[in-house]
Amino acid sequence: MSTVLQFTPTSSRPSALSQADALALAEPVAQALAATAIERDRAGGHAAAERERIRQSGLLALTIPTEHGGLGASWPTFYRVLRRLAQADSALAHVFAFHHLQLAGVLLYGTAEQQERLLGLTLSQRWFWGNALNPLDKRLAATDSPVGYRLDGVKSFASGSVGSDMLTISAWHAATHSPLIAVLPTQADGITVHADWDAFGQRQTDSGTVSFEAVALPRADVLQRPGTTPTPRATLRSQIAQLIMANLYLGIAQGALAAGVRFNREEARPWFQSGVTASVDDPFVQHRYGELRLLVRPAEAVADAAADTLQQALDEGAALTAAGRGQVAIAIAEAKVLAHRAAVEVSSQLFELTGARSTSARYGLDRFWRNARVHTLHDPVDYKLRDIGRHALSGEWPEPSAYS
Amino acid sequence: MSTVLQFTPTSSRPSALSQADALALAEPVAQALAATAIERDRAGGHAAAERERIRQSGLLALTIPTEHGGLGASWPTFYRVLRRLAQADSALAHVFAFHHLQLAGVLLYGTAEQQERLLGLTLSQRWFWGNALNPLDKRLAATDSPVGYRLDGVKSFASGSVGSDMLTISAWHAATHSPLIAVLPTQADGITVHADWDAFGQRQTDSGTVSFEAVALPRADVLQRPGTTPTPRATLRSQIAQLIMANLYLGIAQGALAAGVRFNREEARPWFQSGVTASVDDPFVQHRYGELRLLVRPAEAVADAAADTLQQALDEGAALTAAGRGQVAIAIAEAKVLAHRAAVEVSSQLFELTGARSTSARYGLDRFWRNARVHTLHDPVDYKLRDIGRHALSGEWPEPSAYS
Amino acid sequence: MSTVLQFTPTSSRPSALSQADALALAEPVAQALAATAIERDRAGGHAAAERERIRQSGLLALTIPTEHGGLGASWPTFYRVLRRLAQADSALAHVFAFHHLQLAGVLLYGTAEQQERLLGLTLSQRWFWGNALNPLDKRLAATDSPVGYRLDGVKSFASGSVGSDMLTISAWHAATHSPLIAVLPTQADGITVHADWDAFGQRQTDSGTVSFEAVALPRADVLQRPGTTPTPRATLRSQIAQLIMANLYLGIAQGALAAGVRFNREEARPWFQSGVTASVDDPFVQHRYGELRLLVRPAEAVADAAADTLQQALDEGAALTAAGRGQVAIAIAEAKVLAHRAAVEVSSQLFELTGARSTSARYGLDRFWRNARVHTLHDPVDYKLRDIGRHALSGEWPEPSAYS
Amino acid sequence: MSTVLQFTPTSSRPSALSQADALALAEPVAQALAATAIERDRAGGHAAAERERIRQSGLLALTIPTEHGGLGASWPTFYRVLRRLAQADSALAHVFAFHHLQLAGVLLYGTAEQQERLLGLTLSQRWFWGNALNPLDKRLAATDSPVGYRLDGVKSFASGSVGSDMLTISAWHAATHSPLIAVLPTQADGITVHADWDAFGQRQTDSGTVSFEAVALPRADVLQRPGTTPTPRATLRSQIAQLIMANLYLGIAQGALAAGVRFNREEARPWFQSGVTASVDDPFVQHRYGELRLLVRPAEAVADAAADTLQQALDEGAALTAAGRGQVAIAIAEAKVLAHRAAVEVSSQLFELTGARSTSARYGLDRFWRNARVHTLHDPVDYKLRDIGRHALSGEWPEPSAYS
Repeated sequence: MSTVLQFTPTSSRPSALSQADALALAEPVAQALAATAIERDRAGGHAAAERERIRQSGLLALTIPTEHGGLGASWPTFYRVLRRLAQADSALAHVFAFHHLQLAGVLLYGTAEQQERLLGLTLSQRWFWGNALNPLDKRLAATDSPVGYRLDGVKSFASGSVGSDMLTISAWHAATHSPLIAVLPTQADGITVHADWDAFGQRQTDSGTVSFEAVALPRADVLQRPGTTPTPRATLRSQIAQLIMANLYLGIAQGALAAGVRFNREEARPWFQSGVTASVDDPFVQHRYGELRLLVRPAEAVADAAADTLQQALDEGAALTAAGRGQVAIAIAEAKVLAHRAAVEVSSQLFELTGARSTSARYGLDRFWRNARVHTLHDPVDYKLRDIGRHALSGEWPEPSAYS
Repeated sequence: MSTVLQFTPTSSRPSALSQADALALAEPVAQALAATAIERDRAGGHAAAERERIRQSGLLALTIPTEHGGLGASWPTFYRVLRRLAQADSALAHVFAFHHLQLAGVLLYGTAEQQERLLGLTLSQRWFWGNALNPLDKRLAATDSPVGYRLDGVKSFASGSVGSDMLTISAWHAATHSPLIAVLPTQADGITVHADWDAFGQRQTDSGTVSFEAVALPRADVLQRPGTTPTPRATLRSQIAQLIMANLYLGIAQGALAAGVRFNREEARPWFQSGVTASVDDPFVQHRYGELRLLVRPAEAVADAAADTLQQALDEGAALTAAGRGQVAIAIAEAKVLAHRAAVEVSSQLFELTGARSTSARYGLDRFWRNARVHTLHDPVDYKLRDIGRHALSGEWPEPSAYS
Repeated sequence: MSTVLQFTPTSSRPSALSQADALALAEPVAQALAATAIERDRAGGHAAAERERIRQSGLLALTIPTEHGGLGASWPTFYRVLRRLAQADSALAHVFAFHHLQLAGVLLYGTAEQQERLLGLTLSQRWFWGNALNPLDKRLAATDSPVGYRLDGVKSFASGSVGSDMLTISAWHAATHSPLIAVLPTQADGITVHADWDAFGQRQTDSGTVSFEAVALPRADVLQRPGTTPTPRATLRSQIAQLIMANLYLGIAQGALAAGVRFNREEARPWFQSGVTASVDDPFVQHRYGELRLLVRPAEAVADAAADTLQQALDEGAALTAAGRGQVAIAIAEAKVLAHRAAVEVSSQLFELTGARSTSARYGLDRFWRNARVHTLHDPVDYKLRDIGRHALSGEWPEPSAYS
Repeated sequence: MSTVLQFTPTSSRPSALSQADALALAEPVAQALAATAIERDRAGGHAAAERERIRQSGLLALTIPTEHGGLGASWPTFYRVLRRLAQADSALAHVFAFHHLQLAGVLLYGTAEQQERLLGLTLSQRWFWGNALNPLDKRLAATDSPVGYRLDGVKSFASGSVGSDMLTISAWHAATHSPLIAVLPTQADGITVHADWDAFGQRQTDSGTVSFEAVALPRADVLQRPGTTPTPRATLRSQIAQLIMANLYLGIAQGALAAGVRFNREEARPWFQSGVTASVDDPFVQHRYGELRLLVRPAEAVADAAADTLQQALDEGAALTAAGRGQVAIAIAEAKVLAHRAAVEVSSQLFELTGARSTSARYGLDRFWRNARVHTLHDPVDYKLRDIGRHALSGEWPEPSAYS
């Protein structure tokens, strides 16, 4: 096995991690995940060892700014790392990415004090974050209490919640008809995480159901109070999440394409009517790989451009306008739909090339489609297409929401 | 549970079974298969009880001509029955279909005596046939022997071989550089069936590997001797097989579409931006179901027309010309490609409509794609497209082979 | 030139024209139209000679029942004839088809007296009918008058109106908030036909604008009075029209495919990297022709089945239910969308096969796309897809309208 | 009309033109071309005034390096300018682009003296260059002569030849079984340009046939002598040409999309079943514009990336390896196929959105499809797909040729 680069966060790190260095940090993790991905897909459940492997790698500090002691990688760099991990194992890549999504929430919604405290503790305590934020789901209720709020109810599809240290949550505050956003230790009294995720793909995303019974939420850990209208900048959180989806899909597509190429080079036999002696010389096989490549390559180019657009918007800080935020949303919507299609199509079509023998369970090649198929259902692609087309037609920006 | 129609074969059956009666005979079998399809897909292996259920239904006599004591259903009727079974369980439908493919082989290649004897025994002994015929695979060798031939070697991907009573086999006869075709009891001395099929779909097709060690093949059970050039009519066997594939794919597509509709009607929730209160009222959902229907409906229409073309060619008997055989091959090639695409696309795209919650393992909705994906790799679709296009361009017929 | 079959209508014709005889009658007309189609497409305008050629052929009597002295061809036969003509010249085929659509209107909406009189005169006077019926367009007003009604206003997109003898019209009757449907001689006082059609395709459909100034409409020529709710059977008129569209599109697709094949066989050169000496031997060319064929063939099969469904519904007469009518509408909607796509895709994609040299104006190969593109915009394909999908989902039938 | 920026080339230009300045220079030209594009498409023939307009703008000096007195724009900038012009008028954009392709040929194949002389004269004489280079066509023969060579024969599809001042030519030198490449004044004795281009699209590309009768070719004007093997760098000429194609297609797609949006915003009526009062609010219209945008956007992103890759390769100079050249070829092949599809699909599909009324000849909207359809046939897309897929499979680079 390859040796693991050891990362030791320091408070005096001088400069942000470059993309090349970040990818070098991720490479052995990706290879370790790939080595067991087929069997873990079969087993499902919680990948404790692999999560520990990610924790040990230092990658949990990737997007924490250097001023908070983190690696300070840019978002474009984060997404490239994510893609690399998703090529190997899109379930663990999702857990990794959603950790960083929660950190982004702290940066976008939190006060300076909250950022300092929570990001500092993330580093010192080596926290792994999970997600229980879903404003569409109003089943988790927040009621006023002396310390702040009391939480009762459930959150389902809570990615990365199983085995997490900290959670970001949203809860419905009936008194103000609005949601609050907050952070909580997963071990807090009254919180129970149920490992009930049983989808046919993305099987190790630890996307459990979290139940809350009389949970005390201190005022200091509320990132967005009820009744607050978020700034355009704060609403970039959902765009960071959408671009996580896009890069995960893209990683699946890339991983599937690479697995297909490997099979055709090493295992596949030419068809008896092809007139060639190697599968890779069959003109129809070559042609179809050209088609698959033309699903992946545009998704890469547009996802990379969208990451740059996102970074520029984040760099504008509080000055970001609704229109500036809208441009990010359209750029990411385009990337997401392209990556969605690349993932679903490449992972299904590749079998036309690899052939009947590649369906043996020992190759595990169906996991790409199962992972792509499950993950791409996060939110419906048709409403992304509508947003893109509506903007092209009338200049209207997508309304900021948890999905757009 | 519905009561099962009991079939008692008689030697004086007056008339062939109508399509309506055949479908009525198949309906309770289909429903019984559907009831356990999800759990059996998960379990894999040999479905002994379900094969027995098919045997008890009388459907194994479906295509045996009335003069031989069978039900005498036409091929169009057989394919409609097959499609109904495949909607419920495409693995068992395959086992059922390949039984009939072997009977077709007896009718197309066998002498009058062989037909009389083998079809009669099929009825009286309630034989279930399996397939070990694959002329492209020359690993099974036939050598001359006093009783006829001696067989040594292996056949893989032998559909329905596990648990079968009889096998059709092909073997390579080196002395004449040509294959022979024959029948053998699965229990014959020297034959071993290995249940080693481990594909990620069509998990209960009993497609094992059959090994032969010094197996004695009596001359009387050889359907086609080495060195024989089959008539155009005899080569229809591969077309019967290809149209079995087409109707299996189509059954999968129909089954997937029906499962999707059921989910959208009973389980799915409308998207929060849709402005409707039921998923089935979302215009994008309606539109996409229109698209899926337009994958299934053409495949049905073309498969039905192809079955009629096949029946007409069979009815021509020995008079069938190479051109008449070619028309069948083109008609079936068109049906097969359309059904292939319908199966793969409907089973993958339906999730865009049923949404994230439909990926729970308890619904088993991914089995349609896995079954479609594995089964459609029987032979490469690109060479079918080439055959169709070449014929459109130059009038050339596909060269008769085990796949065309 | 081929000799033209002469048709002499007689009042004692014993039996309906068979499909084979109808196609034989149409063949020389199709060939004559094909011979000048390229130059007439370039010229645009009114094809007086070709309309006369159709009139002389007897084909204007094709769908008139034998009891009224016509050829009595079934609707499936009519649509096959239409398809043949559309392969040659889709503009004149449209004029031909819309003549028969008006006759269908007389049969579906007219009294026995009106049928007898109008169909009889159609035969004896060799009338060519045009269309000015479009209930969505309320710009033509009917007001009560002593003889029946007075008409004022305009109808645009009136197919076949230029050069017609008779028109079917719809007019808005404000007093009852409902339309009436009637017939009128094109030469009636106050009617002016403006030849203002200038689309880039279907250039000789004579689809002018008809203006009406104080036109007297006698009560006897009103087929549907204001305030009448049509029966399910009467509303089949719009389905007959929709299936005319489908077969026109299909004829264009078939004509384009045949022209492409001819070019590749006779004119195209192999690509220098193909390694073959004739374009038709290039595997990519063969493969793509396979794809084009798979656009055309399903549309044929589904259109043929839809014509049978329509005929059965018409044969039910007054007993036809809304559900029976709905089945026709879905069957024809499916056929229309498939034919739409076949026409637009084949006519555009064929150039990938025929290559750069085939774009010379002297081959006129772009007319297929221009004709398909203009004609397929009759009504939006997305609402057909919605109707099909909505029915698949909820069993709901399309609401009867001028387009569905 | 907008005022035209006047460009005065000077020999002491300090720095290369920026992309923003280049686009500003091109904008009024694009607008002037757009204003008459519909009528000139109808007229066909030679656009003398518009070519003069381009000449006056200074854009003919765009890619001439500043050291030779030109504007020194980078290739990425050139392609962006080209795209802008192609949005307005893809025929004149082609003439403009092929002028620069010839200059690139001088830079890639010419000696320092030839570059100095020919580029200097291009500026001082305001030459407009045309193309008569096509190594696949061996009908133009070069034979040795005292001054250098004598040329006899023809070149067809010579883009921009009609009305040009200078030509680049290739000719077959039988003695060495190899081609030579050279430049010649269009007015040279023995050269005749026949304006015989009659395709149904790209009607004003001046792509005539050039005949040569005993034309004297001085040795000094030969860029590549017979028997020479070009360097990897020199063979980038065909890649510059391929990326010209890609950006032309992309400009057509962008122009078509913009024209469609304009029509839907200003002219289209909502469908009566849509339930909305403006076409742009129809969810199906919005969704389809989303789809069209997803054809255009990826092609833009990949074309921009390919232009950067090309520029980097050119900047490497003589050090460019075959692999470096191969990377350019793959990047450009990907861009070209995506742009090809965007152009053909957007220009055809947009009518589903703009509807029947948009087919009136006065809008000229069919010109986008006709231009796209003709131009995309320059070389077959299937061999590009094969090159891309073969590289993905085996790492093999496309063999350098006039098309790859």
